[in-house]
Amino acid sequence: MSKIIAVNAGSSTLKFKLYEMPEENVLAEGVIERIALPASHVEIKYGDGKKYEKTTDVKNHEQAIQILLDQLLDLDIIKEYSEINGVGHRVVAGGEYFDKSVVITPDVLKKIESLTELAPLHEPANVLGIKAFKKVLPDIISVAVFDTAFHATLPEKNFLYSLPYEYYEKYSARKYGFHGISYRYVSQRAAELLGKPAEDLKMIIMHLGAGASICAVKNGKSFDTSMGFTPVTGITMATRSGDVDPSLLAYVMEKEGMTDINEMIKVLNTKSGLLGISGVSADMREVEAAQATNPRAKVAREIYVNRIIRYVGAYLAEMGGADAIVFTAGVGENSITIRKEVAEGLNYFGIGVDNEKNDVRGVVRDISAKDSKIKTLLVPTDEELMIVRDVQTLANK
Amino acid sequence: MSKIIAVNAGSSTLKFKLYEMPEENVLAEGVIERIALPASHVEIKYGDGKKYEKTTDVKNHEQAIQILLDQLLDLDIIKEYSEINGVGHRVVAGGEYFDKSVVITPDVLKKIESLTELAPLHEPANVLGIKAFKKVLPDIISVAVFDTAFHATLPEKNFLYSLPYEYYEKYSARKYGFHGISYRYVSQRAAELLGKPAEDLKMIIMHLGAGASICAVKNGKSFDTSMGFTPVTGITMATRSGDVDPSLLAYVMEKEGMTDINEMIKVLNTKSGLLGISGVSADMREVEAAQATNPRAKVAREIYVNRIIRYVGAYLAEMGGADAIVFTAGVGENSITIRKEVAEGLNYFGIGVDNEKNDVRGVVRDISAKDSKIKTLLVPTDEELMIVRDVQTLANK
Repeated sequence: MSKIIAVNAGSSTLKFKLYEMPEENVLAEGVIERIALPASHVEIKYGDGKKYEKTTDVKNHEQAIQILLDQLLDLDIIKEYSEINGVGHRVVAGGEYFDKSVVITPDVLKKIESLTELAPLHEPANVLGIKAFKKVLPDIISVAVFDTAFHATLPEKNFLYSLPYEYYEKYSARKYGFHGISYRYVSQRAAELLGKPAEDLKMIIMHLGAGASICAVKNGKSFDTSMGFTPVTGITMATRSGDVDPSLLAYVMEKEGMTDINEMIKVLNTKSGLLGISGVSADMREVEAAQATNPRAKVAREIYVNRIIRYVGAYLAEMGGADAIVFTAGVGENSITIRKEVAEGLNYFGIGVDNEKNDVRGVVRDISAKDSKIKTLLVPTDEELMIVRDVQTLANK
Repeated sequence: MSKIIAVNAGSSTLKFKLYEMPEENVLAEGVIERIALPASHVEIKYGDGKKYEKTTDVKNHEQAIQILLDQLLDLDIIKEYSEINGVGHRVVAGGEYFDKSVVITPDVLKKIESLTELAPLHEPANVLGIKAFKKVLPDIISVAVFDTAFHATLPEKNFLYSLPYEYYEKYSARKYGFHGISYRYVSQRAAELLGKPAEDLKMIIMHLGAGASICAVKNGKSFDTSMGFTPVTGITMATRSGDVDPSLLAYVMEKEGMTDINEMIKVLNTKSGLLGISGVSADMREVEAAQATNPRAKVAREIYVNRIIRYVGAYLAEMGGADAIVFTAGVGENSITIRKEVAEGLNYFGIGVDNEKNDVRGVVRDISAKDSKIKTLLVPTDEELMIVRDVQTLANK
């Protein structure tokens, strides 16, 4: 019996989830927010619905981890540091180096640091988290679990852009895809639900969170996915644009008097998507609430559904059909209406949901209408569980 | 009986086709190339396979038209200028002003000139052609036929990008689509072939020329299309990239030391697509010839087919099926293998070609396999005919 912690470090946040393995029991989970900012905030949920909260000063990630561990001691969740046997770090970009989870050696860390350009917002924070844990708990196994690794199986025709080939050769400019930890978990769980090995199934998984993407999973492997070189492309997201005509950027930049393309890319990441179209909110629930009286909110929602439908159609074509489509992540797990509208929009392919079965949030369930040719499933994602399972597997080697 | 000329003016070219109407007989067609460059070239085909050619100096578009008309007199195709009763100009961008062909008044011309930013390469040349004809033949009806007009019916959810809405409000930043003259012609001709009114049909038309795009035509109207604000986006083309992650541009620009986004956009337009991936050629025939020995040529072709398949799948989803898919333009009319591979890639949807029927170039034909659920048609496009028909219709008003 051992305790393993899954960590997701952002630039000013540190999320964690502590498991007892191999039982996969969650002992505690929480987040430290506003690291290195005034009024940092610590929140830990544990036991049967208990919650610890504190506003304090947290100077850096290392201190955040120190505070977290001391608080786990204080709350009697662990008796000493040494009870924690392993840590798994979510790392956004693995580039072309990593096609699976790896134990973090100095060489691995150097490679991860070299990939900063592929995910400039996330990768440096992931590195901070890795280094800070190494300092506080130097002797336990530390594993990097990559958001891109699941997509290492993309065929060349799907990962190459139609650009000068030397951009790929010289700069590794290609589609990497993201949400791979989620897709790996959900594809396995969906296969269990369907009672068949993942290797015998074709699925289209819709990970609809604030960041949202779609993945065509063929015989258990990622075959295509809607995010690209970075997570800004693909379907419409909370604040990200998804696909856009690149020439439009030059035009808008000139109109807005922008000279730096990075300024424009920031708009695509932070002021676009549901928020940009609707002008109301990046939150689907608020956009939904506004749609009756606000035409921009209405069309934002229509576009959101439309882009999902387009990609599912495209992936049905690419894979030559599918056994199931699967909803997961925030909106996918919780929005009954989005699921219903997406499925209705795909009716031509023999896809549909049963309204009664679909009237549910966040459970594993087959929500297909009777006589569906392609099943519709709801499978809540669990990236942290995937991470600690990988740590356990590598620790056992 | 009257003679009407269709004109397509580029920055250094002037293509024309002279018709006898309403019989729709082609009297002559040709091109003047290298206008304002050394060794301009005039070529006119007429009669039964006759051809006139001459290399000379042509200073500007006005002189090109003068030479053209004088040569038509010389070749006895017309007896005097006044026999030409109307001219139709292909204009690439109609913006949100024009949803159909219009007689060119000073006000219309001013509007067309204001749209230069939407098609910086094409629109100024179109304007040159209009002005030059006006000067040489001031009294005949002059009509603008827009490549975007057919797409005026795109629903908002399909023409809006997931960007801040004010970019649309302030700058008309939206999807316009192109190849509209071709789609209008082909959709009507395909409906005739199917023996049903276009209003009762759903079609997906693949215009596969050097510039290539796909259009979902629902009940005779454009419902969605793969080109966007400009013609650079959508499927893979001869030298254009089609869809690409916009963040990749910032990354490549930094690597290549580019500071002006327009430099990057130029690469997307002129050095990408089949040419960029294969490194061999922008011409599908040459890429095809190289694929056995050149892996980059092979993957370029795979990508070309793959992107078509993705869009057809997406449009089947959006429209809830289709009665037919239709191939047109250069590659669409002439590449037997591309048609075959696209249809095979769409087999899941009940699409397929009959190898014998498909063994043909440039004719109107149903090339579907027996028992196809969705028909596959070959319909050569004829943009010039569409243009002169519009001139005739407006002249009769």
